[in-house]
Amino acid sequence: MNTYASKRLEEAVNELSRLPGIGKKSALRLALHLLKQDTQSVEMFGNSIIRMRNEIKYCKICHNISDLDICEICAKHKRDQSIICVVEDIRDVMAIENTGQFVGLYHILGGIISPMDGIGPQDLNIQSLVDRTRNTEIKEVILALSTTIEGDTTNYYISKQLNEFDIELSTIARGISIGDEIEYADEITLGRSIVNRLPYATNLPK
Amino acid sequence: MNTYASKRLEEAVNELSRLPGIGKKSALRLALHLLKQDTQSVEMFGNSIIRMRNEIKYCKICHNISDLDICEICAKHKRDQSIICVVEDIRDVMAIENTGQFVGLYHILGGIISPMDGIGPQDLNIQSLVDRTRNTEIKEVILALSTTIEGDTTNYYISKQLNEFDIELSTIARGISIGDEIEYADEITLGRSIVNRLPYATNLPK
Repeated sequence: MNTYASKRLEEAVNELSRLPGIGKKSALRLALHLLKQDTQSVEMFGNSIIRMRNEIKYCKICHNISDLDICEICAKHKRDQSIICVVEDIRDVMAIENTGQFVGLYHILGGIISPMDGIGPQDLNIQSLVDRTRNTEIKEVILALSTTIEGDTTNYYISKQLNEFDIELSTIARGISIGDEIEYADEITLGRSIVNRLPYATNLPK
Repeated sequence: MNTYASKRLEEAVNELSRLPGIGKKSALRLALHLLKQDTQSVEMFGNSIIRMRNEIKYCKICHNISDLDICEICAKHKRDQSIICVVEDIRDVMAIENTGQFVGLYHILGGIISPMDGIGPQDLNIQSLVDRTRNTEIKEVILALSTTIEGDTTNYYISKQLNEFDIELSTIARGISIGDEIEYADEITLGRSIVNRLPYATNLPK
């Protein structure tokens, strides 16, 4: 006998259990929950995910998620076009925007350098950051990556790449405890760490 | 600015966060994970859920999930047609089948009586259990509900409904600690509790 009594249920459980942090038992619980919803809700559920994947765009300037070719932040002329804050992914943009302490632009790397996961510099949006720095009037680049070994490695790699330019390179203040992830920091600490950012060199290991 | 930078992403996060146990932050994490998958995988993901909801059937005899009108268990002539094991949902069927200790049929209630959640006897497959007991050659009904107050209430209600029939009414042995859910019990305890089931009356509160 099929363990799940139905091929259809089995397929859905297999798909759900491929989500990060969701095992077979949780996937079955989610599938049974969805089975109890009406057809229309479940179609909205499934289609919203498919539509997101098919229709979402990435900003041609900063690589943020966007519905248009240029994201809302890059398109806003009021923002300070001379400061770029480099982050790992969109969740970090959301966290920093929530502090209301930053008026510059962003650059989303799409990850950090992590040899363990097979992610090298060429897998990240680093070259386009170099191009941006070369081609536009950038005065400062703020490195706002998580304070982990991978984050530090990425910071270091980027600092080398931007070495040739006459810009100020800073990192957000290490008020955020080492090992914590930026997206989970409280707004006050995160806001302060943007305001109190330090020249990159002062944070280098001695 | 839209918090999620994209309407499409926002819609998907809202849908995902309606799943039980998944909040906004987890939903965003799942959505970003799905965004990194290729289009085809995400379409398979979404469609498998929609297809499950649209195509799944429930067995006309025991209400188990099924791809056909009659589920595989009810359709199997080798199984003992005179014993019905009453369970809350399909996960309990899977757990009991895994023990290999039960050869009878099942009856899936689709929940348990829970006034707090607005679930009364009329919301469950209890009348069809009474009809089954009346119309087929049933010798024994095993009540295999979770050992919670709601489970006990449901057991009691069913026992009253089946009072008029000349059948043996049993419950699985309370070897499973009170408060634990059947689906999470280890196979040995659960298997023993099926073998050592006791007449229903011996479990009534004195």
